Amino acid sequence: MESKKVYLDNNATTMLDPQAKELMESYFCQKYGNPNSLHSFGTETHIAIREAFNHLYEGINAHDEDDIIITSCATESNNWVLKGVYFDTLRFGEKNHIITTQVEHPAIRSTCQFLESLGVEVTYLPIGENGTLDASAVENAITDKTALVSVMWANNETGIIFPIQEIGAICKKKGVLFHTDAVQAIGKIPVDVQKAQVDFLSFSGHKFHAPKGIGGLYIRKDIKLTPLFHGGEHMGGKRSGTLNVPYIVALGEAMRQASLHLDFERNNVRHLRDRLEDALLEIPDVFVIGERALRVPNTILVSIRGVEGEAMLWDLNKYGIACSTGSACASEDLEANPVMSAIGADKELAHTAIRISLSRFNTKEEIDYAMEVFKKSIARLRSISSSY
Amino acid sequence: MESKKVYLDNNATTMLDPQAKELMESYFCQKYGNPNSLHSFGTETHIAIREAFNHLYEGINAHDEDDIIITSCATESNNWVLKGVYFDTLRFGEKNHIITTQVEHPAIRSTCQFLESLGVEVTYLPIGENGTLDASAVENAITDKTALVSVMWANNETGIIFPIQEIGAICKKKGVLFHTDAVQAIGKIPVDVQKAQVDFLSFSGHKFHAPKGIGGLYIRKDIKLTPLFHGGEHMGGKRSGTLNVPYIVALGEAMRQASLHLDFERNNVRHLRDRLEDALLEIPDVFVIGERALRVPNTILVSIRGVEGEAMLWDLNKYGIACSTGSACASEDLEANPVMSAIGADKELAHTAIRISLSRFNTKEEIDYAMEVFKKSIARLRSISSSY
Repeated sequence: MESKKVYLDNNATTMLDPQAKELMESYFCQKYGNPNSLHSFGTETHIAIREAFNHLYEGINAHDEDDIIITSCATESNNWVLKGVYFDTLRFGEKNHIITTQVEHPAIRSTCQFLESLGVEVTYLPIGENGTLDASAVENAITDKTALVSVMWANNETGIIFPIQEIGAICKKKGVLFHTDAVQAIGKIPVDVQKAQVDFLSFSGHKFHAPKGIGGLYIRKDIKLTPLFHGGEHMGGKRSGTLNVPYIVALGEAMRQASLHLDFERNNVRHLRDRLEDALLEIPDVFVIGERALRVPNTILVSIRGVEGEAMLWDLNKYGIACSTGSACASEDLEANPVMSAIGADKELAHTAIRISLSRFNTKEEIDYAMEVFKKSIARLRSISSSY
Repeated sequence: MESKKVYLDNNATTMLDPQAKELMESYFCQKYGNPNSLHSFGTETHIAIREAFNHLYEGINAHDEDDIIITSCATESNNWVLKGVYFDTLRFGEKNHIITTQVEHPAIRSTCQFLESLGVEVTYLPIGENGTLDASAVENAITDKTALVSVMWANNETGIIFPIQEIGAICKKKGVLFHTDAVQAIGKIPVDVQKAQVDFLSFSGHKFHAPKGIGGLYIRKDIKLTPLFHGGEHMGGKRSGTLNVPYIVALGEAMRQASLHLDFERNNVRHLRDRLEDALLEIPDVFVIGERALRVPNTILVSIRGVEGEAMLWDLNKYGIACSTGSACASEDLEANPVMSAIGADKELAHTAIRISLSRFNTKEEIDYAMEVFKKSIARLRSISSSY
């Protein structure tokens, strides 16, 4: 079996879209002016920036009066929302409660823990055994002290889509601010901030083929949010710092491409994902977390009884296949996969999770190669397993 | 006179160094893995990242045990230091005082104003008529309530270098944390965190030919600083967010080039700057702020009596020359230049400031062309001036 390089870790990060790369090229060494400068070196960047913003607004169906603020990553966006609401509301104590889930990205969970150290109360809702969240659990958790609900749009580990539209309606009804971390949804399924009635939405470029180091925060019109970066007048004073022109251009193009490829994602990427998933499920004692219909089209969280996740990962890597045992943001600790634990998997099974995440750049040949490697590796690792 | 494009606004932003661009190229569409991933797509980025960090450590003489944390810009670094010290110390009230200057970048001034709204006391030290800051003024302002001194290394408008080494010694003696915003010093003059005895140092890549959207914060060893970005374990949990691999590679190379070119900056860039400055000073009623010996080698803040700064800027722009009336971070408001006001310039003169800032990429031909344009524009604008 000839070794190939197959990248199946697109929930960790993605390749930059070559068209986005091409578009941003000239903003490094030719059109390098600061967009805030008044001279032509500055102003010659404006058209491309405006176009990029148009793509971003269209991509999530933001209204002209809403804000989309460029940030350096979704971690920044998530910190900004939580800490902004802290400074705007929570610190005064009249409302001192945040509702989130047990399976949010560390950027939400760690920030919530920090706010707890400042006296904020946080409810971490559990997910069910099927990996989903019940919107009524959010409704039941809301009290008259609740300032903010923060629930991810799709889970990074399982790909399971949360009932954002229902939660949005509940928050609207109850008069509570609603934030969603949509990092794992954009480019995979339609994301519409109007339908979802969200007040804040975080996104990260590098999860949909824009570069690493750029993201954004959608803020519904007329909602005040204390800045995380105070400073100059950039972005209307909402987020200071010189604009990263090349990456903004790439981000806009990546969003445009993501929108254009939603059907491709729903059909072709899903088809390849299902092909691989079907092959895995033919192997005995292999489990996939979450119903297919509830998941984004590119993700499989698979549990292979008797095969420790890390061992599987190394075997795959030896054959050039990149997967993960969970979030890359927590890859260095060898604890059980937190989502697996949250859905109530036993401890042994929780250590067997492997996350496979495709992109539109994967081919049928790559998937067929991966199928073969998985089969051989599982057989090999089980043959030396002490628990199988 | 044939029109050229001459970029003389390098204190606003710089062109990306072509060698830095070349080095980062392959990390967009080929070696695009997340450095935190365990597979080869992730680990193949590690050598280049390590090399970049080596250049950064060498560039400012950081010790191995010190931290240099990558941020998205100096605005982030500056916000982080001030808000981190707020959460670590100031909010408890035992120490509740920050000392800074009236001429810091908006990222410091606005953040200080925000902290004032939270009950922190801030002393904004004035600068003298020569544009400099007296270290003894810092010493006299320190009380037993002072937690932090934050003074920029070199001023962005005038280029005047502040007595960082003296202030560092004072802060050390008094047991007060010392932060410097070194954005306008790096690449222009030697910056040595050990000699300066700073505890924190902010820098911005795009001011020394790295891309926009990346910067850093030096933190002396064993100094705790509450994160601005909570989240995953990136950067030892100090600053979460997926690493921007291409820009980190470019940042390291830009720092290496900056260090290599310090002599060129001190000699060649200074020579070109002085050539232009001499020509300007030959014109009657033209003033340059600050003694040359006290300034970084690339900067001229010039005041041309009778010529409104904005008008001059448009005339220069018409001939392809990019300058500014002051910081690009505050370019959209037409208020008097704040540094001009701080040094006590009369109101009319404060509106005549033009900042010229060179880089190592400027040529003698460009400077000679600029000299001609300046002469003609000054004559033309004075001929229609109501105040000259």
